[in-house]
Amino acid sequence: MPQNRLVTLLTDFGTRDHYVAAMKGAIIRSCPQAQIIDITHEIPPHDILSGAFVLAQAAPNFPPETLHVIVVDPGVGTQRKILAARLGRQTFLFPDNGVITLVAEKMPLESIVTFTNNKLLNQATISSTFHGRDIFAPLAAQLRRGLSLEELGPQPDTYKLLDLPTPTTQKNEVVGQIIYVDHFGNLISNISRAILAEAFDDPMHTAVSLGAKVIGPLEIAYGSAGQGQPLALINSMGKVEIAINIGRACDVLNAAIGTTVSVTKQ
Amino acid sequence: MPQNRLVTLLTDFGTRDHYVAAMKGAIIRSCPQAQIIDITHEIPPHDILSGAFVLAQAAPNFPPETLHVIVVDPGVGTQRKILAARLGRQTFLFPDNGVITLVAEKMPLESIVTFTNNKLLNQATISSTFHGRDIFAPLAAQLRRGLSLEELGPQPDTYKLLDLPTPTTQKNEVVGQIIYVDHFGNLISNISRAILAEAFDDPMHTAVSLGAKVIGPLEIAYGSAGQGQPLALINSMGKVEIAINIGRACDVLNAAIGTTVSVTKQ
Amino acid sequence: MPQNRLVTLLTDFGTRDHYVAAMKGAIIRSCPQAQIIDITHEIPPHDILSGAFVLAQAAPNFPPETLHVIVVDPGVGTQRKILAARLGRQTFLFPDNGVITLVAEKMPLESIVTFTNNKLLNQATISSTFHGRDIFAPLAAQLRRGLSLEELGPQPDTYKLLDLPTPTTQKNEVVGQIIYVDHFGNLISNISRAILAEAFDDPMHTAVSLGAKVIGPLEIAYGSAGQGQPLALINSMGKVEIAINIGRACDVLNAAIGTTVSVTKQ
Repeated sequence: MPQNRLVTLLTDFGTRDHYVAAMKGAIIRSCPQAQIIDITHEIPPHDILSGAFVLAQAAPNFPPETLHVIVVDPGVGTQRKILAARLGRQTFLFPDNGVITLVAEKMPLESIVTFTNNKLLNQATISSTFHGRDIFAPLAAQLRRGLSLEELGPQPDTYKLLDLPTPTTQKNEVVGQIIYVDHFGNLISNISRAILAEAFDDPMHTAVSLGAKVIGPLEIAYGSAGQGQPLALINSMGKVEIAINIGRACDVLNAAIGTTVSVTKQ
Repeated sequence: MPQNRLVTLLTDFGTRDHYVAAMKGAIIRSCPQAQIIDITHEIPPHDILSGAFVLAQAAPNFPPETLHVIVVDPGVGTQRKILAARLGRQTFLFPDNGVITLVAEKMPLESIVTFTNNKLLNQATISSTFHGRDIFAPLAAQLRRGLSLEELGPQPDTYKLLDLPTPTTQKNEVVGQIIYVDHFGNLISNISRAILAEAFDDPMHTAVSLGAKVIGPLEIAYGSAGQGQPLALINSMGKVEIAINIGRACDVLNAAIGTTVSVTKQ
Repeated sequence: MPQNRLVTLLTDFGTRDHYVAAMKGAIIRSCPQAQIIDITHEIPPHDILSGAFVLAQAAPNFPPETLHVIVVDPGVGTQRKILAARLGRQTFLFPDNGVITLVAEKMPLESIVTFTNNKLLNQATISSTFHGRDIFAPLAAQLRRGLSLEELGPQPDTYKLLDLPTPTTQKNEVVGQIIYVDHFGNLISNISRAILAEAFDDPMHTAVSLGAKVIGPLEIAYGSAGQGQPLALINSMGKVEIAINIGRACDVLNAAIGTTVSVTKQ
């Protein structure tokens, strides 16, 4: 038995049907010592980019040897591959649709395999619509019981990565865009602390705009603005974020994924 | 201590109040080794049929000796009985309102008792509105600590089962209806693979209709249809399901629980 | 290692982002034996009073030595203090914004400290927007590993308590208000069984009104009223509650937090 028993789940299943519980039952049935932690099941249906974003933010907080199981899988039942990889000493089991993209930017890839070893599963019980229960869960259980990645199958020739927008740096200006809107309505951009450090002598002497609207300089905390007022800051992900102190920036500022964010020298 | 420590919870409590945590605290307080897994708490309030459906889909994935605690209980505080039963080597604790109906179709009933042994609980602490915390949780803890079903009370003379619509088979046609709509908006009917196998020489040479709209033949996977296009398939529950590839069938096709589904020979 | 491994989490983070999982990962990484139970993550954003209410209802159900971690924290990153306290033999870690108010009414305060011992954390990794992950989680892990409250910092001179409306008792009448609306739409007032017992010779011979509308006497169970009919009862929290049997009182009766509730002698 491996020391680490952690299995995280990240899906777009929602939590009101039996889907998540069926996966958990299937894991526990085959690996009773597994300790399952939900990352989330509320990725918008079929939204691979959101899944990639949440996974990349959550995974690095978990200990080495954690097994992350990702089922945001609009291609379930088609010829899309199922992959397993080691990244940053953790293991990831996921559909080959790019959901691993942002993890792969953060944690070094150590190895990757395509699942082809059908002998590991009872083929008679595999549906074409619920691989979470019928493939991902039993493979996760076997991996937690000591199966090595190599036993899943061979290294793939290639694997999918999402083609994501990246910020552009011009003279005294960095232009990026909103890539995620969180539960609080905070607008999170793809402009990182590192990009700002490269572009500006003093990143704190800049002004942040959202579309055509000037928000202001980078503040330290939400409470740096008055209640209901907008502000920009570098958030806990190291990204430029636009928020409303005690309010929903996405609604108040009428912005969404794709809205332009620019940072200019002051 | 019994080997199996698993307790699942299925309720209509939602997850924003203290209700679920109160139940978990009450279980853990009396049985620290219990391992609690949520099936769901998002059964629509008082919706016994939805509870029955999700339970029947989830339970068979769990290992033998799992204890399932079901609190979809609009009759809380009235004279409705609380039952415990063994079905398929698992144990179920539930209000006598028919929520066990679909499990009972899937897993053989081994024994059933009515809870009457009031000495098991401190009567002074039992509210009339929250039996989840005050009766179900402490009984679950005691069952996990080794209490036998027989100690709960005697076998009931009868117990409630829901009277559910069943598909009708006519010459070259099976007519059923939508009985569940899932998180993805998929429309799940009561027409099973077994019913099709009995009605047709070749179930794959059929056409599926939803109300008056012809959907088409049974496909293999969601991806068998173009994006945004409707399709029918036999889903992971073994039921005829009507879906939209990467879309919400309930909205696009304007269907709901009760909408007619028919399968005809082609 | 302390015997009790329980850590509960109560936040306003929602469950669709990485925030909750990041906290759980940070706790487990530092304290693998921690057993984490969610109270809820669906406190309305920044709603300290709702957090206080749910916490006070949930906490007493957990065993002694449970550690409750509360992150409803609109002041994150400002000078607001982080406190830890012993109440009723449990431990609470929380921002100093009054979220402990209703627990403090229920469970005796045994000790309280302000977190000032910065040496316990790696200051370089503390963001100003996500203290849940960067301060609360690592402190929780250390407390579960045996750190004593005294090592966090000194006793505060004072700490915040919410100034909540209390019912008034006049001749033959108690007047309070709705303080919480639950998932079922039930309207929960601040009028407790104890207040009624003091005000009336026989609390069951009273009539309950919501605003100007007479609801009726105190009933025993939801099922005491006809389906769709309103009723009042003393609920599982010991408070006067106004409900609709199998319905949503907040919608049907058009009431919300703040609506007046009165109980008069009959």
